[in-house]
Amino acid sequence: MIFFCNFATSKLVTNMLRTHNCGELRIDNKAQEVVLCGWVHRSRNLGGMTFIDLRDRYGLTQLAFNEQVNKELCSFARTLGREYVLQVEGVVCERSSKNPKMPTGDIEIEVHNIKVLNQSKTPPFTIEDNTDGGDELRMRYRYLDLRRNILKQNLSLRHRLSILIRNYMNDSGFMEIETPFLIKSTPEGARDFVVPSRMNDGQFYALPQSPQTFKQLLMVAGYDRYFQLVRCFRDEDLRADRQPEFTQLDCEMAFVEQEDVLQMFEGLMKYLFVKEKELEFGSFPRITWDEAMRLYGSDKPDVRFGMQFVELNDAVKGANFKVFDEAELVVGVCVKNCADYTRKQLDELTEFVKRPQVGASGLVYIKVTEGEIKSSVDKFYSPQQLTSISKKFNAQTGDLILILAGEKHKTRAALSCLRLEMGTRLGLRKSDDFAPLWVVDFPLLEWDEDTQRYYAMHHPFTAPKTEDYPKLFTAPADVRANAYDLVVNGVELGGGSIRIHDRDMQNDMFKTLGFTEEEAKNQFGFLLDAFEYGAPPHGGIAFGFDRICAVFSGVDSIRDFIAFPKNNNGRDVMLDAPSNISQAQLDELNIKLK
Amino acid sequence: MIFFCNFATSKLVTNMLRTHNCGELRIDNKAQEVVLCGWVHRSRNLGGMTFIDLRDRYGLTQLAFNEQVNKELCSFARTLGREYVLQVEGVVCERSSKNPKMPTGDIEIEVHNIKVLNQSKTPPFTIEDNTDGGDELRMRYRYLDLRRNILKQNLSLRHRLSILIRNYMNDSGFMEIETPFLIKSTPEGARDFVVPSRMNDGQFYALPQSPQTFKQLLMVAGYDRYFQLVRCFRDEDLRADRQPEFTQLDCEMAFVEQEDVLQMFEGLMKYLFVKEKELEFGSFPRITWDEAMRLYGSDKPDVRFGMQFVELNDAVKGANFKVFDEAELVVGVCVKNCADYTRKQLDELTEFVKRPQVGASGLVYIKVTEGEIKSSVDKFYSPQQLTSISKKFNAQTGDLILILAGEKHKTRAALSCLRLEMGTRLGLRKSDDFAPLWVVDFPLLEWDEDTQRYYAMHHPFTAPKTEDYPKLFTAPADVRANAYDLVVNGVELGGGSIRIHDRDMQNDMFKTLGFTEEEAKNQFGFLLDAFEYGAPPHGGIAFGFDRICAVFSGVDSIRDFIAFPKNNNGRDVMLDAPSNISQAQLDELNIKLK
Repeated sequence: MIFFCNFATSKLVTNMLRTHNCGELRIDNKAQEVVLCGWVHRSRNLGGMTFIDLRDRYGLTQLAFNEQVNKELCSFARTLGREYVLQVEGVVCERSSKNPKMPTGDIEIEVHNIKVLNQSKTPPFTIEDNTDGGDELRMRYRYLDLRRNILKQNLSLRHRLSILIRNYMNDSGFMEIETPFLIKSTPEGARDFVVPSRMNDGQFYALPQSPQTFKQLLMVAGYDRYFQLVRCFRDEDLRADRQPEFTQLDCEMAFVEQEDVLQMFEGLMKYLFVKEKELEFGSFPRITWDEAMRLYGSDKPDVRFGMQFVELNDAVKGANFKVFDEAELVVGVCVKNCADYTRKQLDELTEFVKRPQVGASGLVYIKVTEGEIKSSVDKFYSPQQLTSISKKFNAQTGDLILILAGEKHKTRAALSCLRLEMGTRLGLRKSDDFAPLWVVDFPLLEWDEDTQRYYAMHHPFTAPKTEDYPKLFTAPADVRANAYDLVVNGVELGGGSIRIHDRDMQNDMFKTLGFTEEEAKNQFGFLLDAFEYGAPPHGGIAFGFDRICAVFSGVDSIRDFIAFPKNNNGRDVMLDAPSNISQAQLDELNIKLK
Repeated sequence: MIFFCNFATSKLVTNMLRTHNCGELRIDNKAQEVVLCGWVHRSRNLGGMTFIDLRDRYGLTQLAFNEQVNKELCSFARTLGREYVLQVEGVVCERSSKNPKMPTGDIEIEVHNIKVLNQSKTPPFTIEDNTDGGDELRMRYRYLDLRRNILKQNLSLRHRLSILIRNYMNDSGFMEIETPFLIKSTPEGARDFVVPSRMNDGQFYALPQSPQTFKQLLMVAGYDRYFQLVRCFRDEDLRADRQPEFTQLDCEMAFVEQEDVLQMFEGLMKYLFVKEKELEFGSFPRITWDEAMRLYGSDKPDVRFGMQFVELNDAVKGANFKVFDEAELVVGVCVKNCADYTRKQLDELTEFVKRPQVGASGLVYIKVTEGEIKSSVDKFYSPQQLTSISKKFNAQTGDLILILAGEKHKTRAALSCLRLEMGTRLGLRKSDDFAPLWVVDFPLLEWDEDTQRYYAMHHPFTAPKTEDYPKLFTAPADVRANAYDLVVNGVELGGGSIRIHDRDMQNDMFKTLGFTEEEAKNQFGFLLDAFEYGAPPHGGIAFGFDRICAVFSGVDSIRDFIAFPKNNNGRDVMLDAPSNISQAQLDELNIKLK
């Protein structure tokens, strides 16, 4: 029921139901007659006076009701609950006690007419930055959660970034071209979502994991510079920063080499940092994949802080310390000013590295203190040896060295976790600090023990470096690719490669990946065909747009940068989707449930 | 195999593999050393000289090879087939015979070095505006079809319009907010595409037919002005201007009335016409749905020409002409200057209206000629009566009146077809002429004979006009909605409505549509819940973006404004999708084929 309260002859003849929004009135508007619409954010009854903060997308404006001026209206105002939708008429007045924290804090509206546009039940949680609602409840009432400031800021940032990106790409001569969502399922890569076809009995479309093949076809078609902000789909088990549907900034260029792609998209990122963060960057640093693994144990290092790895095999082997002697790799980091860590703190770190997600078997430390060097391996190493080790780290008095040992890849990964943990503990990973980095020269292939075959590290269309191509059949693991990632603050924001444009090279690649000609033809026939009709050299990159938004806000999870996200079971708890469908629908699609 | 032809020491050290594109060189660039990349568009061997037109996205540039200057290179150039990909080095020269039709027609490149970047098989059809390739062949090799100029122009228009739209919406305070693609199936409306969920056994997502409910939730959430250029999906049988996936410009505003929405989007369309067509429009004309049906027999009249309907019941009944006497409606149009139509032409028109797609049972004509009036019903009507009828049309000497009779709706629809046919025959529907029109005051409901129930004409969230609301239960068919369509040149480009924001009114609407409370709750529960928490008054509109592109190009079919469209069986013949999926995929999804 819509409730009217006309205390005076209404002058509500504005077009938009309002003359101003709730964020724009200032002291300059003093004495103006205005009409505002919005939600009752909060309400305070101070006896003679009642105040309501009226909220809309643009801000809050204080409404004032004076019992002595209009007793009836004031009493009525007191009956209005939280989240009621109001249209109010009144005059802008200067506040007696101003609120410098609010942009509209100098004024208030002396209201002389209220229309209740809609009532509201009491929301199940407060519409505040620090809400009392739990995750599940907020997801279920997402339309109320979205009223909170933080989510408005997130979606607003997302919108701004999308406009900035599109205009930058347009100005750089890129065309946005929409590619299809109902495509063909290909078993390579992650799991597809599929869509049964009613008109083609027993057959299925797949939803795209990315427009990869289409953008390559567009290069074959001569479109030269393509981009698209596009939804992609992966039916994978979910984690905090994964959603079954996510948005990608997908880009491709023809007649380019790797350097051209890096320059182009470094330009884009610099532009976004300037426009959104007022941060100017010089050239982004670059690091090879090999170096990144050696110095940070990760292909997406957070370089907001140093704490680089130092490898110790030469320095520590042969001292009869079995753990080190038997390890493939002994490697450590130097943590500044932490030599005063207590036994308890060190035990905590040992527990941390032993967690299954980290996977180390133990932790060795060396404390470099005034006139003394102490370690958990004093039995095996003399103070001179420890000092010599500490010099490899350029350790100063007061520093703590943390060392792990074991199989190379696992140990690097574990030390990478420990490095990030120490960075976090020491406050070195500031959310308003941004450290972009190109990681280049990725390996072309990675070996999979389970299936005993090579997989493309990036995807099967990535070109090997010209100088490494001859090794494709003799030493596949050593072949480097013209592939690159853009990493910011330890998050992989984007990755791409120069593609293979030559049919013979593509065939060699499929051979190395163990595809029969038949399989290659069946899955990628149209692309291989296309390569026979004059494919230009081309390459590109794809960015995770949700992640760009999260990183720009200094936040880890992408979920609150998506208006209507799914939970970890892939459910939309607000819609209650997925859901059962009718037998008639199943029949039309010619499928049965098991 | 990549083929190199280095006739001189290469200076090809440019970054982008080229210094210029194939559309930009002018006489001002004379004597410059340039490097171009592109495709061999055509090649002419004139004995001593050989010319190649090199093509890229930006244009064509002529390459010249003089046998006397470099015999070897010239011979080599003659071996290069159509669609080969070249990188050429040379110097810009003034042409001896200029081509004023080409932007680069004043110059040519005297080439001194060629690198073949890729070879090409001979394409299965010519890459020309008037190609020799049939529809099916061009769809199969879409990446070659997309090389044709006309398709490049179409996709380029599409890109430009999307940029213009987004910036206009952004400047008008709208936020683009992405809504989910994996949502919940609702039986109301068209057929959904569904997606089996692996993680939620036996359950399905649906792909959105439009983001309707989400945009309403965003208004409830306080986002005030939302838009999105977004893919939508409908599993319907296809026609020329329908695709299973299509793109919509979806918009919604809060705290508005119908007039606000019309003003806002009339502004957008005017902006697009100015920017893209250099056409300035005053206020768009408006017509009620009733009037549109009465004057044009269609809710999307093409008003590039008049030829309005004239109803004749009063004038023709009671003359013992059974066809007219028994007809619910006798209605005609006056076609200027066609009184000289021959027997054969009139028979043709009679055949036209009798086609099942048109559905009339016959055609009556009146020819108004000098000093004489002739008709196919002379037996029943005197010349005075015919003259009096012709006056109702304001017919002049030389005009032809065409009359249909029968059941009202069918007769109007048939005469609408005939009117459009005559408009086309007389060249009144010019592709560079644009006639926008708002159709307003749509009926809220339409009765379906088959299921014996009312359906929402727009959708179940459309608000009735306030003054008609009381008739919802007494005379549902008479209730008009706050619903509107934007029609341009007889194509419905967009449609929208003011929504119901009151839970009680929404319940009344569901009751009228024959939904039980249970059904309404099951299908739209989250939206009905949301309406209890302070929904603001709101309304919006959605435009068919593919159609906007087609109409701006004066073309009927949307297919060539989509990079990779489906055919009429919903198949992508290039990808060969949909296709079979593996038993393992079916097993994981817990479904079986019938």
